[in-house]
Amino acid sequence: MRHARVFSFLVLFVGATMLFDSRPLGADEGMWLFNNPPTRLLKSKYGFEPTAAWMDHLRLASVRFNSGGSGSFVSSDGLVMTNHHVGADALQKLSTKERNLLKTGFHAKTREEELRCVDLELNVLVSIEDVTARINAAVQPGMDPAQAHQARRAAMNTIEKESFDKTGLRSDVVTLYHGGLYHLYRFKKYTDVRLVFAPEQEIAFFGGDPDNFEYPRFDLDICFFRVYENGKPARPEHFLKWSKAGPADGELVFVSGHPGRTSRLNTVAHLEFLRDKSFPYLMRKLYRREVILTSYSERSQENARRAQDELFGIENSRKARLGGLAGLQDPAILDAKRAAEAELRKAVAGRPELAAAVGDPWADVLGIIKVWEGILYDYDLLERGAAFNSDKFHIARILVRLADETAKPNAQRLREFAESNLDSLKRDLFSEAPIYDDLETVKLADSLGMFLEMAGPGHPLVQKVLAGRPPRERAAELVLGSKLADVAFRKKLADGGVAAIAASDDPMIQLARLVDPAARELRRTYEEKVEEPLRQAYARIADARFKLHGTDVYPDATFTLRLAFGTVRGYTEMGKSVPPWTDFAGLYERAAEHENRPPFRLPPRWIERKDRLDLRTPFNFVSTADIIGGNSGSPVVNRRGELVGIIFDGNIQSLVLDFQYTDELARAVSVHSSAIVEALRKVYDAQGLADELGR
Amino acid sequence: MRHARVFSFLVLFVGATMLFDSRPLGADEGMWLFNNPPTRLLKSKYGFEPTAAWMDHLRLASVRFNSGGSGSFVSSDGLVMTNHHVGADALQKLSTKERNLLKTGFHAKTREEELRCVDLELNVLVSIEDVTARINAAVQPGMDPAQAHQARRAAMNTIEKESFDKTGLRSDVVTLYHGGLYHLYRFKKYTDVRLVFAPEQEIAFFGGDPDNFEYPRFDLDICFFRVYENGKPARPEHFLKWSKAGPADGELVFVSGHPGRTSRLNTVAHLEFLRDKSFPYLMRKLYRREVILTSYSERSQENARRAQDELFGIENSRKARLGGLAGLQDPAILDAKRAAEAELRKAVAGRPELAAAVGDPWADVLGIIKVWEGILYDYDLLERGAAFNSDKFHIARILVRLADETAKPNAQRLREFAESNLDSLKRDLFSEAPIYDDLETVKLADSLGMFLEMAGPGHPLVQKVLAGRPPRERAAELVLGSKLADVAFRKKLADGGVAAIAASDDPMIQLARLVDPAARELRRTYEEKVEEPLRQAYARIADARFKLHGTDVYPDATFTLRLAFGTVRGYTEMGKSVPPWTDFAGLYERAAEHENRPPFRLPPRWIERKDRLDLRTPFNFVSTADIIGGNSGSPVVNRRGELVGIIFDGNIQSLVLDFQYTDELARAVSVHSSAIVEALRKVYDAQGLADELGR
Repeated sequence: MRHARVFSFLVLFVGATMLFDSRPLGADEGMWLFNNPPTRLLKSKYGFEPTAAWMDHLRLASVRFNSGGSGSFVSSDGLVMTNHHVGADALQKLSTKERNLLKTGFHAKTREEELRCVDLELNVLVSIEDVTARINAAVQPGMDPAQAHQARRAAMNTIEKESFDKTGLRSDVVTLYHGGLYHLYRFKKYTDVRLVFAPEQEIAFFGGDPDNFEYPRFDLDICFFRVYENGKPARPEHFLKWSKAGPADGELVFVSGHPGRTSRLNTVAHLEFLRDKSFPYLMRKLYRREVILTSYSERSQENARRAQDELFGIENSRKARLGGLAGLQDPAILDAKRAAEAELRKAVAGRPELAAAVGDPWADVLGIIKVWEGILYDYDLLERGAAFNSDKFHIARILVRLADETAKPNAQRLREFAESNLDSLKRDLFSEAPIYDDLETVKLADSLGMFLEMAGPGHPLVQKVLAGRPPRERAAELVLGSKLADVAFRKKLADGGVAAIAASDDPMIQLARLVDPAARELRRTYEEKVEEPLRQAYARIADARFKLHGTDVYPDATFTLRLAFGTVRGYTEMGKSVPPWTDFAGLYERAAEHENRPPFRLPPRWIERKDRLDLRTPFNFVSTADIIGGNSGSPVVNRRGELVGIIFDGNIQSLVLDFQYTDELARAVSVHSSAIVEALRKVYDAQGLADELGR
Repeated sequence: MRHARVFSFLVLFVGATMLFDSRPLGADEGMWLFNNPPTRLLKSKYGFEPTAAWMDHLRLASVRFNSGGSGSFVSSDGLVMTNHHVGADALQKLSTKERNLLKTGFHAKTREEELRCVDLELNVLVSIEDVTARINAAVQPGMDPAQAHQARRAAMNTIEKESFDKTGLRSDVVTLYHGGLYHLYRFKKYTDVRLVFAPEQEIAFFGGDPDNFEYPRFDLDICFFRVYENGKPARPEHFLKWSKAGPADGELVFVSGHPGRTSRLNTVAHLEFLRDKSFPYLMRKLYRREVILTSYSERSQENARRAQDELFGIENSRKARLGGLAGLQDPAILDAKRAAEAELRKAVAGRPELAAAVGDPWADVLGIIKVWEGILYDYDLLERGAAFNSDKFHIARILVRLADETAKPNAQRLREFAESNLDSLKRDLFSEAPIYDDLETVKLADSLGMFLEMAGPGHPLVQKVLAGRPPRERAAELVLGSKLADVAFRKKLADGGVAAIAASDDPMIQLARLVDPAARELRRTYEEKVEEPLRQAYARIADARFKLHGTDVYPDATFTLRLAFGTVRGYTEMGKSVPPWTDFAGLYERAAEHENRPPFRLPPRWIERKDRLDLRTPFNFVSTADIIGGNSGSPVVNRRGELVGIIFDGNIQSLVLDFQYTDELARAVSVHSSAIVEALRKVYDAQGLADELGR
């Protein structure tokens, strides 16, 4: 799983824990803020009280990947561990036709052999500050949503810039509880990140799409990077000690990572919108992209290599979202949500003062959703760029807007162009990651075709974009005619500002300019008529919850650092007992079952070295921790803060966690710490790396 | 390609031949009726005059496959040759987990070893009779479209039954020129069809989806069946002699087969409807089905085997339709169609008497299309069964309707239940073809999900169909609860008539009954408000064409027997010359290019026996013949009526042929007669079979 994933489930058993909206939390639920940990819950259920130092250590050893995912420091020399599928974006960008790192894996035997990544940025959360009052104070009573949005944006941009100027740290104002709270997160940023070790994708993603989101599982889904500062390995103060034994059955474990997005606090009307409009549209897009990219990939090994990471991401999203949609399509789930919502509303109504303050945010959400529905497709096609699925277009869009936005005062800029975000934005913009014109053309032709089909051939913008040509011809013309693959060319355009953009005859720049007025208008409608009013309505619901249930609630996931906890525990599925862990012996059995054919083929090294391995070594294990896409690569630690595993997936039943927590069958899936060391030593002869872990 | 395919193109060069609507035919255009061959054209262009005997011989040696495709008699002992991909449906149905005929191929060395097919039916067209006057006479002036439809259907059912009673032959009234003419086709029917030889799918479909609709090509896309009568090989009077040398470059060749469907005579409004509504919806369905079936297939070898033929069909349709849609999305094509239509309308307007008789059918088509658009999705979901994609549902639907329809007089029945069609319908209904519950569940869950998404959870029928369950659970319940896999159970229900159906507690029968009223209502709307008025409007356009241009025009393809002709001829693509044929040497080169990996992997036999083959043997060749999906398996003959090849595909540029003929780059692709004999003798040791050909 990765950042963009949404989880849900296929088979659901609705239990008492469902009505968490208005009841005390049960089981191992929650994606908790590090400045509001579930102290009472942990103490009462597990007799464990994490100290402030324990929390700080875990937070400061945790790492966020800008490519989407989590990780942790695992040595005093800046070694970072994450999932192979989180590192895959970096591996893909370091690969060429001659050097396919996803296929062969990689092992730097010396520091000198470590490969500097093209555009990877890692962040460590060093402080959290509540700025809710200041943000809300910027929104004056009587402001309409458009004014409120602009005021709020100005406050956020300003706070971030002040913080950046003061500390030199990356500073992000994050929205929590859909607008109930605003926190300022400051990050230490690492941009010199080097690849140390990655296994072959065949073992990292053994079982491929068929086994993705399934359990039992047999994946060595890990890779190692090292962060450098001033040309030398960084020496992080906090890193996780390695647990040689790993976790025991039933042991309490913690997960520190960045769950991407959940929709647990959504109103029923909002969930229905996801079910009836948003998810079906997304699936439609994913299905066609998967077919188009698969078809492209099958034409040659080199094509397959070029599209590999992107295709994995699409397949992965498709499976996750399909599970999510299946969850939403289960009347039992929605009925339970409906009951919980009714209960909350009743509780609010029972306290007249609260009721007066809260008003009817549920009705407001419903009204806002109607506006959203009206722009759903156009917003995605034009503003989010689904109509122009091409790296070159993405670059062109950023260049065009960079010129326009940086000409404005910081407070008035679109969020991603605010002063404190520019560094990271330019890192992406000037990335040397390869761009393949043939792949670009295939993707752009398909997405232009989708635009044409959805907006219709009579749409004025469709006609201007296609310029009288069929989508495939037009896509080839745009891609082949654009020089934006050249980073120096991009830099020149960026330096030239508005004048250079206006004068450019690059067809992709011209396309980005052509669609920008309509795209910006949609963005404005979305921000002012959807995002802002939704934020206000949800803030009122959050407020009601705080007042009724206290602050022992956690916000929906937002790709910010969270603490989850749970126990290592198997489950019973269709009367069959699923043990909490698999082992290497099981890996070889599964490969044999499939006659060692892809995606169940073992890399040659694993076949040759089978005899050296202790086949009883635990390989993957499950726990009840509350995780979701974005948690990929999260360290799993025990009470002593030792690393016992690394999250890489959830089982198919865990796909429900997008909408509600359950521990009946849903499980987080991790690679066991013992398996990692055993594989490094016996299969990869990586003694130095194994020795370094936890030191 | 197969019956269901629609062709179009990706790259188009619009030439003068486009405006065929109002100009004399050029080049090698046309899918001609055997009772109205292009005699003048052939004489003037090629100096060749086919005699009536020549035409009769070719027609009577031609065979139609009920599974969708064409073939021909190639020996005096009832040997029939077709494409491997036409025979694949039969091969799939004869396969089990232990015996995968698609993978291993098959060769009966003796008559005793020939395998009787489960439900294959072959038809030979023995006579054609024009019944236009009688059909049209049934439609009285002043009848509304509903009455006209019923009268026309009654006339068709009655004519067919009379013919069947008189001759004992399968008798079909076919609609030509969209309603301009009606012909009664009588067929000799063969139902004891046995598998004689099939190569491995790896060589039959070498290059897989990536090379499908591409050229140069290297496929041995053939298989052989033998028809039996009274337990003995049939002795057809007409069969094609084998040409050892095959065709020469530039030689005139003929294709006799069953092109499935073209839309060349469609009005522009009708084409726009296909472009904007019908094709996008179809693509949407194909994309999701391809992903779902691929995902199912990847789980195990056995899953892959079970879904193999169906998945091939979907991939094939997807590629063909995507080409078709790309053609429709090219403004140049539609503009040319627009110009041609304007020219025809002007010519009509220029002859006041004609104009008065013809009226404005173009405006009428536009109006009818609006009605069609209103029921497009529901009609496909409910009446065509897209919401219930399952063999068991298909069987249940037929059983339910069989009971209702056979209780009515023949003239009033739905066409497929008319007396003369019942034999073939029951052959399908009582087929022993295996049904796999796991595959059924996956397909049904997906299609129920699509129904839910498209109709919405509030739709009363959606709620009844799903019965409060999510699609996946409901699908499992329906599939696992149904006994319709048991043919004896089906027969008992069929024998029990309306009472047995009403009393049945089989959940799939109950589902079919539940949706039948709505489905039938949609069918009625379609037939009476779309099909019939469209037929009347197009009949008037056809009439105008006949009056303006004479009868030297051919009707759109309708999966009935047609004669096409063309020359063996290469082409120049992007400045590169593509020769008219490939050879075995090229096959081995292409496999090597792809490191012999699927779908470019050669079967072991082909690797072992490479040295025995004459590598210069021509393998596949192209010609300018006007073909389309459904022509798969069509014999290609020379002036002497000798078989020089067998059609199996069109190149990507030929996908335009759905909408218009072009011979600039579009080519029909055939297996060369020499390659077939060389492979049979040298690779498969099938001397007996090779010796039998043409004897």
